[in-house]
Amino acid sequence: MNLDKLFNPQTIAVIGASNSEGSVGYALIRNLVGSGFKGTVYPINFKHKSIYGIRAYPKLRDTRDEIDLAIIATPSATVPELVEECGQVGVKGLVIISAGFKEQGEAGNAMLDQIVATAKRYGMRLIGPNCLGFIKPSIRLNASFANKMALPGKIAFISQSGALCTAILDWSVEQHVGFSHFVSIGSMADVGFHDLIDYFGADPNTNSIVIYMESLTHARKFMSAARAFARNKPIIVLKAGKSTAGAKVALSHTGSLAGNDHAFDAAFKRAGIIRVNTITELFNAAQTLAMQARPQGKRLAIVTNAGGPGVLATDHLVEQGGEIATLSEQTMAALNTGLPPMWSHSNPIDVLGDADEERYGMAVEACLKDPGVDGLLVILTP
Amino acid sequence: MNLDKLFNPQTIAVIGASNSEGSVGYALIRNLVGSGFKGTVYPINFKHKSIYGIRAYPKLRDTRDEIDLAIIATPSATVPELVEECGQVGVKGLVIISAGFKEQGEAGNAMLDQIVATAKRYGMRLIGPNCLGFIKPSIRLNASFANKMALPGKIAFISQSGALCTAILDWSVEQHVGFSHFVSIGSMADVGFHDLIDYFGADPNTNSIVIYMESLTHARKFMSAARAFARNKPIIVLKAGKSTAGAKVALSHTGSLAGNDHAFDAAFKRAGIIRVNTITELFNAAQTLAMQARPQGKRLAIVTNAGGPGVLATDHLVEQGGEIATLSEQTMAALNTGLPPMWSHSNPIDVLGDADEERYGMAVEACLKDPGVDGLLVILTP
Repeated sequence: MNLDKLFNPQTIAVIGASNSEGSVGYALIRNLVGSGFKGTVYPINFKHKSIYGIRAYPKLRDTRDEIDLAIIATPSATVPELVEECGQVGVKGLVIISAGFKEQGEAGNAMLDQIVATAKRYGMRLIGPNCLGFIKPSIRLNASFANKMALPGKIAFISQSGALCTAILDWSVEQHVGFSHFVSIGSMADVGFHDLIDYFGADPNTNSIVIYMESLTHARKFMSAARAFARNKPIIVLKAGKSTAGAKVALSHTGSLAGNDHAFDAAFKRAGIIRVNTITELFNAAQTLAMQARPQGKRLAIVTNAGGPGVLATDHLVEQGGEIATLSEQTMAALNTGLPPMWSHSNPIDVLGDADEERYGMAVEACLKDPGVDGLLVILTP
Repeated sequence: MNLDKLFNPQTIAVIGASNSEGSVGYALIRNLVGSGFKGTVYPINFKHKSIYGIRAYPKLRDTRDEIDLAIIATPSATVPELVEECGQVGVKGLVIISAGFKEQGEAGNAMLDQIVATAKRYGMRLIGPNCLGFIKPSIRLNASFANKMALPGKIAFISQSGALCTAILDWSVEQHVGFSHFVSIGSMADVGFHDLIDYFGADPNTNSIVIYMESLTHARKFMSAARAFARNKPIIVLKAGKSTAGAKVALSHTGSLAGNDHAFDAAFKRAGIIRVNTITELFNAAQTLAMQARPQGKRLAIVTNAGGPGVLATDHLVEQGGEIATLSEQTMAALNTGLPPMWSHSNPIDVLGDADEERYGMAVEACLKDPGVDGLLVILTP
């Protein structure tokens, strides 16, 4: 199903926009207005004529405009009726920030069912509830209440945790890591991981997908979406809930994969997903993806000034399914000419302990020219 | 005449609002929206549906709202018709940012006459043209294209030079000097110094008026407005154009005071205006006004740790029309008790070269309690 109106809106209404600094309804307007987004943002607030210095409207209808995306940040009890109103005026996409559904037991679940049914009836797609919203830096659209804007880039990030969104956002700005889309997915009442993998998989501006996952509903759809795209675009997943306690939580959700973490491991592997185990690894993977092109194959050349680290790297590479590149005749000839006689004469290329930057440069250049080399690891021991 | 709708608008239209960063029409919207102003700002632009991420309107009328203040930043040739339109829809106040009137000779002057006549016919008051706009920090209203917001305070600042506005603004933020109003007055086609002196003189939130003046039209009105308020609120003027060349420029303006700078001196003195001669003095005066209450009389006590500076200060004080306070018996008794026998035994109070902070503190406290002391100068020589 098409998520285009969600991610490429021309007109956005913020239902529950507020003048109170520090409130979610204020942060949403602050992030959307004046930040370079070329569309039109309408604050909706039935109490105030003006929000953030601009015209506010009591109802969607009063804007007398077609609304592509409605962001709802009002108390949960008001949301079902608001979603109905969105449908009536022809809204195409919804982001529900509000919490108080699944967490509120039966009554909350009943409201959520009603919301989803209404959205379906009108053909609206829905992110949330209980989420931060999303950011699409390429069009300078910050449809979230996060405290900053993400940088533009090629990584699509999807997080089931709002807190982690904020942490990654802070880190990414500092490290100059950019995103094509940055999505806080919340309770996944409608749009889930598989929808986003389908959408980002087909998006020419996304070249990798990074996911922080707490629980997996619609496991089969997820697997098939991942399988379809993992070969073209790396999908990296940090799956939380490895502990027994976490597994129990996962079990209690209908439709979840079994609480056995090994099942996830196996499933991810079959789908071609790269699984990482810590937030640090997720960050590192994201940064690596942001900083360099994806290698076309698994053949690695290693340039080192010490034998030991070269051996360790080789072991780890082979263990992970990689290969040591076989150097071409031209490369060997170049290395024989440029390096001292005692060099290792094979890959890993030991340029010896006294190597200066020129010798490293020479070896790296020879490897980069070699069509049998898909990637290059340079090790410098002090 | 009432300037209230100009300075206390609920609704503001920016005619010539723009999406081009770096343009005046962009800076105006950026300064007005999201900066804490509680009213409603409408961008008017007949080419774009959306400006700065919010709804823009082709015409004032299309806002379907009453507009209190219209800020016009379009080419001069378009302004007469726009002012007519403002009148028709009931706009109360105008700020014309656009240049290209007086500077453009006869044709420009004719346009300006038409604009003023139209404004008068509809009862609109007008600041400008060729100005930066104004800032009223207490309601967080930045109706200017200056690069920052002024801090709130009690000084009303009026400048005939836009460049000086920017310089003073930068300086004031750094020095924590605040303003009740900060007005770039431009060509004064309608609102002039005298209107603003009348208005700020009656404003309970203004306790001093600081003016940068290049030429004085309506000299008589200025004098009578200044005379009415200078006793209650200090009016400080930096009059530029002291040079012969500057005087000639002043002479060429009908209605100006004679190009003889001494005439200004005399007139300012009669009106109770404090004249300063350099921008530094203007800054110092503004800072002094911002930092302390205005003394009720001219009797000064001087506490010093060296005789010479005390004498110099006394000379200067008397020359400027001040007086050396006569210390009361209680003050003398306190000083005799607290200070070493060698102290000066009169005002200036020489607390001697080896005075520490306690001795200074003791002397200052004694002076502050003395009803015969209106002000206190503390001198510390190293």
